[in-house]
Amino acid sequence: MSLSVAILGATGLVGRTALRILDERRFPIRELRLLASDRADRGARSLAFRGREVPVDPVTPESFAQVDLAFFTCSNEVSQAWAERAQAVGARVIDNSSAFRYVDVVPLVVPEVNAERLGPLPTLVANPNCSTIAIVLALAPLRPWGIEQVHVATYQSASGGGGDTLQDLESGIQAGLDHDPPRRADGSPALAFNVVPKIDRFESNGYTREEMKIVWESRKILDLPELAISATAARVPVRVGHAAALSVTLRQAISPDEARAAWAKSPGLEVVDDPSSDRYPTPLEVAGRDVARVGRVRHDLAHPRGLLFFVVSDNLRKGAATNAIQIAERLADLAAQAAGATGER
Amino acid sequence: MSLSVAILGATGLVGRTALRILDERRFPIRELRLLASDRADRGARSLAFRGREVPVDPVTPESFAQVDLAFFTCSNEVSQAWAERAQAVGARVIDNSSAFRYVDVVPLVVPEVNAERLGPLPTLVANPNCSTIAIVLALAPLRPWGIEQVHVATYQSASGGGGDTLQDLESGIQAGLDHDPPRRADGSPALAFNVVPKIDRFESNGYTREEMKIVWESRKILDLPELAISATAARVPVRVGHAAALSVTLRQAISPDEARAAWAKSPGLEVVDDPSSDRYPTPLEVAGRDVARVGRVRHDLAHPRGLLFFVVSDNLRKGAATNAIQIAERLADLAAQAAGATGER
Repeated sequence: MSLSVAILGATGLVGRTALRILDERRFPIRELRLLASDRADRGARSLAFRGREVPVDPVTPESFAQVDLAFFTCSNEVSQAWAERAQAVGARVIDNSSAFRYVDVVPLVVPEVNAERLGPLPTLVANPNCSTIAIVLALAPLRPWGIEQVHVATYQSASGGGGDTLQDLESGIQAGLDHDPPRRADGSPALAFNVVPKIDRFESNGYTREEMKIVWESRKILDLPELAISATAARVPVRVGHAAALSVTLRQAISPDEARAAWAKSPGLEVVDDPSSDRYPTPLEVAGRDVARVGRVRHDLAHPRGLLFFVVSDNLRKGAATNAIQIAERLADLAAQAAGATGER
Repeated sequence: MSLSVAILGATGLVGRTALRILDERRFPIRELRLLASDRADRGARSLAFRGREVPVDPVTPESFAQVDLAFFTCSNEVSQAWAERAQAVGARVIDNSSAFRYVDVVPLVVPEVNAERLGPLPTLVANPNCSTIAIVLALAPLRPWGIEQVHVATYQSASGGGGDTLQDLESGIQAGLDHDPPRRADGSPALAFNVVPKIDRFESNGYTREEMKIVWESRKILDLPELAISATAARVPVRVGHAAALSVTLRQAISPDEARAAWAKSPGLEVVDDPSSDRYPTPLEVAGRDVARVGRVRHDLAHPRGLLFFVVSDNLRKGAATNAIQIAERLADLAAQAAGATGER
């Protein structure tokens, strides 16, 4: 079964990455529409895909007619403006923005963790936050021990903020080669040669929205609505690749070896953890990969049932585009099965 | 009272910073000896101090004769080789290495926190780890609420690893302007555009020695030998300025406002924490300052008696040289008082 696919926000970092990964994974595409909202358009008139140039068209009410699958790799505002219209004409939307993630009936899916939420063939699926995906990939295999409490501190790359933030890093690095880089154009602290503990806007409880995304989304994806979890999210001068230091308390004690064994059996996760040969995960080395990596696992010195570890992933790939395309692959399989079951072809 | 002062390791990053701060703080110096071990000597023949060039001499058994105060800003090995000899001829040693920090009888001092340990005029005082100093400055004012559990994740700058690590960052940035930077000369992952969750060597429990320094030293300085504390230490591509995300459980609940009020009264600490006007601490902006900054304080969503916050400091100044010189100032005062009390002049 070959599909008609649209990407809204095709010219952004995640849109371009999605295009690359659709090709890498030989996603069966009959027709490809690349769409840009006025705002998101960075001037690319066309993008290469499988040897030909595909034009980037402005999104219009007709854009989603006859589209099977629409990847939304755009802002919340653009998602909100177009998601309903795309579904109304029969497209299934996989939305990378956070606009619908917290709507109860909208599945929020990391296929390795909660693919069952795709069961009734939803018309809208939300793709989680780029830090959250690696975090839940590492937490899910620990559920048999009972997750009691989670603390996260993230080290997030510039590309997680999109093309503008990545450009802020590049120009800050250039400006900072010989002396301290200046503040950014919006007046916020330089990202180059700095750590900025503010991602997205502040909420009234003193947390940033990025931190709350990790909290809300981990609870929803792990299906642990009461999970005691808290986060600090910080931007670091890295181009691609998010990292997170986690401390987790389990109801039943788990040894580092047991955790490594549980992770080693988990799809989407690679254990890179051998102090004796100096092996541990880093964001630069997971960039370009489609798995998250976990390592530095050890007993928590502060709690008898605690475990500490460090997780990294490519925020544009497994943290965004790869996960969205894995969702699409499942949806395509399920749709084919459903068509087969009802005798359709 | 004017003192004869020596700096062993004067040509290193901390040694040079100490020289600058001795001048800034108008430390009363009668004679200044700049010393280098063969290993640590980076080729500087002399360093400027108060308008004149002071020669850098190789350390010898005679180097500490008639010296009142010796700052050791060198490796553990060099400290171990010279600390006893310097004390034997009457110098008081303030050692920035970790060689003696864990010896029970050696005071490990952050003057704002445990200056009382300088009471009996020790001949050797250990200066704490550069991350630990800011952490205990922020934890100490919370002691009245009862510190039950502490989790730390650090974001440490290259200069904390000394001149070589800073050079690794600079050359990695240059090599990484257009493509991924290569691994470092020792085969470890690039520091530029990366996060490296390994500082110092691995211990047998899976923690790095840097992480254990935070654990051991926080307990000793706070005089809480059983403190439940654990840490993840990571190097980030920042030149100067360490940061740490902390989550702390108190025996008695504390509100963010109470914590801010306690910190605001604490010397050595500046509260930079106002989400409504986008104020929070960053390492780049604390670089060059002699205080630690704390902010991003909020209730821990994962624990009813938990508090989260973010602390930064200049690792070469308050994290090293400034703290050592503050210790020296206290020692000089105490020595003057003792001399006064016994009628000496």
